[in-house]
Amino acid sequence: MSEADKREGADVGQRGANGGGKSSAGSAEGHKSDELKLAAVYVSDAQYNRNVFFNTSPQCVRLYMLYNHWSLQFLVYVFIFVDLALALFEDPAFVPLPLWATYIMELICLAAFTARLIHYARIIPKQKFWKDPKNICIVVVILLRRAFRSIRNALPQIIYVFFLFIISVLMFSLMALKLFGKRDLKTIDGRSYFTNYGEIIFDLYVLVTTANSPDVMMPAYNSSSTFSIFFIVYILINTYTFMSVFLAVVYNNYKKYLKEEVRQLVRAKRQKMVRAFKVLQEMRDEEPVVMQACWNQLVCVVQPNITNAHRELLWSVSDENKRGYIGKMAFLQLPDLLNIQVITLKSRTHPLEIWIPRIYSSSASRLICRVVQHRAFVYIYDFIILVNAVFIGLDEENSFFSYAEWVFLGLYLLEILMKLYTFEPRAFYARHQFWNWFDSIIIVSALVATILNSVLKPSDGYNGRQILDIVFILRVLRLLRVVDSIKRFRAIINTLVKIGPTILTFGQLILVVYYIFAMVGMELFKGKITYFENSASPGSEYCGNPLLKGSAFAKNNYCKNNFNNVWSSFVLLVELTVVNQWHVLASGFTAVTNASARIFFVIFHILVVIIIINIFVAFVLEAFFVEYTFSKGELQTSLEKKIEELELGIEQDKLDENLVEDMETCENDLGPSETVKGKPSLMFKIASKRYRTVDGLLQRMFEADLSPEDNADDEDPDNESPPGYNFPNPSYDTI
Amino acid sequence: MSEADKREGADVGQRGANGGGKSSAGSAEGHKSDELKLAAVYVSDAQYNRNVFFNTSPQCVRLYMLYNHWSLQFLVYVFIFVDLALALFEDPAFVPLPLWATYIMELICLAAFTARLIHYARIIPKQKFWKDPKNICIVVVILLRRAFRSIRNALPQIIYVFFLFIISVLMFSLMALKLFGKRDLKTIDGRSYFTNYGEIIFDLYVLVTTANSPDVMMPAYNSSSTFSIFFIVYILINTYTFMSVFLAVVYNNYKKYLKEEVRQLVRAKRQKMVRAFKVLQEMRDEEPVVMQACWNQLVCVVQPNITNAHRELLWSVSDENKRGYIGKMAFLQLPDLLNIQVITLKSRTHPLEIWIPRIYSSSASRLICRVVQHRAFVYIYDFIILVNAVFIGLDEENSFFSYAEWVFLGLYLLEILMKLYTFEPRAFYARHQFWNWFDSIIIVSALVATILNSVLKPSDGYNGRQILDIVFILRVLRLLRVVDSIKRFRAIINTLVKIGPTILTFGQLILVVYYIFAMVGMELFKGKITYFENSASPGSEYCGNPLLKGSAFAKNNYCKNNFNNVWSSFVLLVELTVVNQWHVLASGFTAVTNASARIFFVIFHILVVIIIINIFVAFVLEAFFVEYTFSKGELQTSLEKKIEELELGIEQDKLDENLVEDMETCENDLGPSETVKGKPSLMFKIASKRYRTVDGLLQRMFEADLSPEDNADDEDPDNESPPGYNFPNPSYDTI
Repeated sequence: MSEADKREGADVGQRGANGGGKSSAGSAEGHKSDELKLAAVYVSDAQYNRNVFFNTSPQCVRLYMLYNHWSLQFLVYVFIFVDLALALFEDPAFVPLPLWATYIMELICLAAFTARLIHYARIIPKQKFWKDPKNICIVVVILLRRAFRSIRNALPQIIYVFFLFIISVLMFSLMALKLFGKRDLKTIDGRSYFTNYGEIIFDLYVLVTTANSPDVMMPAYNSSSTFSIFFIVYILINTYTFMSVFLAVVYNNYKKYLKEEVRQLVRAKRQKMVRAFKVLQEMRDEEPVVMQACWNQLVCVVQPNITNAHRELLWSVSDENKRGYIGKMAFLQLPDLLNIQVITLKSRTHPLEIWIPRIYSSSASRLICRVVQHRAFVYIYDFIILVNAVFIGLDEENSFFSYAEWVFLGLYLLEILMKLYTFEPRAFYARHQFWNWFDSIIIVSALVATILNSVLKPSDGYNGRQILDIVFILRVLRLLRVVDSIKRFRAIINTLVKIGPTILTFGQLILVVYYIFAMVGMELFKGKITYFENSASPGSEYCGNPLLKGSAFAKNNYCKNNFNNVWSSFVLLVELTVVNQWHVLASGFTAVTNASARIFFVIFHILVVIIIINIFVAFVLEAFFVEYTFSKGELQTSLEKKIEELELGIEQDKLDENLVEDMETCENDLGPSETVKGKPSLMFKIASKRYRTVDGLLQRMFEADLSPEDNADDEDPDNESPPGYNFPNPSYDTI
Repeated sequence: MSEADKREGADVGQRGANGGGKSSAGSAEGHKSDELKLAAVYVSDAQYNRNVFFNTSPQCVRLYMLYNHWSLQFLVYVFIFVDLALALFEDPAFVPLPLWATYIMELICLAAFTARLIHYARIIPKQKFWKDPKNICIVVVILLRRAFRSIRNALPQIIYVFFLFIISVLMFSLMALKLFGKRDLKTIDGRSYFTNYGEIIFDLYVLVTTANSPDVMMPAYNSSSTFSIFFIVYILINTYTFMSVFLAVVYNNYKKYLKEEVRQLVRAKRQKMVRAFKVLQEMRDEEPVVMQACWNQLVCVVQPNITNAHRELLWSVSDENKRGYIGKMAFLQLPDLLNIQVITLKSRTHPLEIWIPRIYSSSASRLICRVVQHRAFVYIYDFIILVNAVFIGLDEENSFFSYAEWVFLGLYLLEILMKLYTFEPRAFYARHQFWNWFDSIIIVSALVATILNSVLKPSDGYNGRQILDIVFILRVLRLLRVVDSIKRFRAIINTLVKIGPTILTFGQLILVVYYIFAMVGMELFKGKITYFENSASPGSEYCGNPLLKGSAFAKNNYCKNNFNNVWSSFVLLVELTVVNQWHVLASGFTAVTNASARIFFVIFHILVVIIIINIFVAFVLEAFFVEYTFSKGELQTSLEKKIEELELGIEQDKLDENLVEDMETCENDLGPSETVKGKPSLMFKIASKRYRTVDGLLQRMFEADLSPEDNADDEDPDNESPPGYNFPNPSYDTI
């Protein structure tokens, strides 16, 4: 037993002794419940990979549970969003608001953050919080800790490749200067071609991004065909090879650091589970174990909305030998078991069958049900959608077509109603029935918008464009349904949808980087370029800045791409990310300030396109391979086996029928006995490839690579707070 | 023993009996040598992964050895190159040649191919050749079999993603039509914006390639800021997500099929080695074995230029227990052992030490050597290079700088001479001393070119631009040396250089695809667009085609981007591959023909950019990871251990000193005895990460994934020619 364990043990023992000291049954019960809460907090920390070293006193544990409550976490996110969104209303404003309003908003946000911070400070040991003076700074930046870490980790390795790449660009520029500088070539706007070394470097850097290909080559190519070799070699080396190497290096680093990070997460999780075990353990046959009753209570505290049947299923997987208690190893599986999403299903009868049994079971009614369930029904509606697509493409001014629109809407409504008549409504609108939800929402909104549109049309003073736009978009979105009816497409879309949430973590990173560049850009370029709504106004030809007269920027009509407010800054940054024409955009801002403005745009390109987009691609690749290639985990397999053993499994196709997902709480208990009689009324299905948390996917990614000893007990003395590990991860980042 | 084995055994036995039937010693010897040759052919087939089912008669074996001789294979490549290059001289010609000349060339090439084919037909069993009527077609296309297979294999999986992507583009186009079509927006050239469905589809497809961003968005964005959301969502979904998914799908497929292919290669290799073993085996202690003498002869036949020491090293690895014979398993390792590149080194004394011993060992001479070997010597020359770089950047018209050029040349020459004085010349110019070769070639050519330039300058009628261009390029290339002196850079460059040859296989694929598109393009667009050298000539403003008057194509001065000859077609296709402005190029050719010309450009984009470039990126990623992460193979490790055991190893840094790589043939034998006395005069080093063949790298890539049973003996009866496996790989593709 390590020192840390002894300390922990002594701690538990002491609190146990304290509880015993009061020697009242209520207090003992209270103590028992405190212990359970502490263990529950450990388990849910392990489940969601939180890494906070909180005080273990009962009060702090309760505070900590409150701290982790989803509603508070959600509130914090709302305030962060509001705080960031304030930039839209502050000068330079997209939508101007009075100064006092934004000030008050800002104050409210800051108050919320402070409250959160105080709450946090109450939870963790005081000396730990103040030991680190940078704590408050950390808390502010912490939201995007992981994302920033990705960049920081990729940097050192990429920097050497980057220098080599820069040397290559510099040398090619020198060669270009020597080869073309003396030939008196002219570019298309009559400037001299490749005579200034600095300009050449910028031009060739832009060529790496392909944005000025083939224009940059044309003067030389026109002068002699063989000069094209220079540019082809340049593109081969710098555009293709170096960019691929950047991707390879970023990908490699990304994987390496992610693996290390996941390894640490797994270890921390393990530690927490060991602590939870120590809190709850009892001795049985000289082996520390956890009893089933205790375990049941724990699970109910950790996951209040778990069904009894689901809980018993998990227990039967943990306690394979049906001994009524489990050892340490089986206990440690708990968070993984909880993270496997099990869909609990109950067969239900259609409400109409209860309300109007005679009519519902009549032969006419049964015919309707058979028609709806028939394959041809799907084909007919697919055909209707295609016809609809053609009608949408035709002119809607014609009154015939606008009548047709009502017919299509009616047909779609009829389809939904018929399906609701046939299938049990709660099953039809179950959580995983994405397409049913999608259909119904689209159709209902289209109905509302179309009605609104035709009601408002006759009234004067209404131009109706906004609502009509929505109607059009909804009308086209309806066509998406065709995709669902082709199996292969559905598979691809499902994969994309599954990767979706984990990709969103990158959305955070990109948003923050955009935000920083938008702020800096507004500082530097605000008001230098103006867009005139009225194209007849005198300055509109040169974006209100005489320096832009005759420039490519003004000629291309890019005036609205400016840094005058947050929204246009973001749009501009998106355009820079897409890369094409970025040199023209950059040249505009260079013209209105000075040549050093290019630095801003080059840094943005390096940071966003070379590093972040590559990390993004690396992530998509990795996630896609996991989705494609990984088989089910060991625990999942054993859980599935158990489900099969108990004959509680359901096939995929049954999911679409009269079964409904149901969430029971521990209180609303049906009891397990009902389950086994005849055909079970309660069935399970593993949603095998859904991950509750982002970390779940990450851990799965590297599951195969993690050596088993990482899972072994860590018994080194400074286990409690390994070096460089103390208080690194406040929980902001694991919501 | 399987049937196939029995047949094989009977075959060998029969030929043995035939040999015995003649009952003359010479014939027996001849038979012995035939057997050896047969085994050698099997081994070298296994070594280079050739898959030809040749006749096993002695005559055919000799023909087959000739067939595989490098000089014949090289000749075939030369003729293929000449045949493809003929397109440069045929009408539409880059360099026009008389018709009879190209005809004769074509005939010669065809004759060569026919000869090769007849040679091939002689080797393989006759019935096998004619069984397959498509054989000749196959032989023609076969050169790029593997490359085409990559595309073909990637297609079925990608096709569904592609359809989904097309549906997405179509739906967004419909939405765009509905949203923007009625708003009377104008593009920058005054055309109506987004009113024609077909045009919208093309515009939005181009936006996926980012080539018309942000121009395609500007009219809508100028009309309302919120419309930018439409385009941002479009770019997110179609440009980023779908393109990443394409990469993921291509990568995944590529890996899967490559793995399968490598598995088949490994199995075929194994089969051939088993056959070779059967030919040579003798019985010893009821176990079939191969004796050392026989093995030695075999190795000498397979690899005539192997050193005796190297051969003995390999034997000592195979025959670990020093029994004088090896079993089947040890024998099967032979091709892998031969494929491990072992650098044989010999310590040599400097020739000057032999010719003028007194002067060379004088203290002044030794001082020079010490100076050259000192670290500061490198630093001084790095500094000189940097100064040189600055001088190159300055104007060379100034006579001071042109004198400085001579000084720099002199300094570089001095460096090489001093190094040659210090280091043994053969060691200095050893095969792996890439940078020494590079330096010397660059300096000597720069010297020659500079002298030529200054000699020719005074003579009249010489404009000197060509030679001066070469001088400039050489001068800048010299600066590359700085890269070598920084360790990290050297590591990256070495990795790139190592991947290089394997990347070249993609060069073949891209060249052929370019070739096909160039031919089709010339058929379709030849002469429609002309470039006028003299910009004053009347048609030059609109590329000689009135249809291009005022078009973006003509305005951008793209006239030289045409399909009038092979070279300009290739340059144009490179520009299309780089993607930027491809829609402008396409619009030019659409204007001079009709709208369906777009199909050509879209197909090129899909095939080259979406599929081939993605395969290329996948390959670079995979190869880079192999270089980065894979450790040495098992065989290499045991070979290295053996080298260490025998104390024949050399450290990396010694490689740069007085050791020289030396290739001995079996005849020019030094005998092993010399090796062991005192400090060995012959040393070995494993060039651990070089691969003799592309397949070597591929096998290494998937070594870890290949299950061990793939290496197990395949004893099924139709082993000789598994279904779908008979005669699939003529040897053209494994040179």
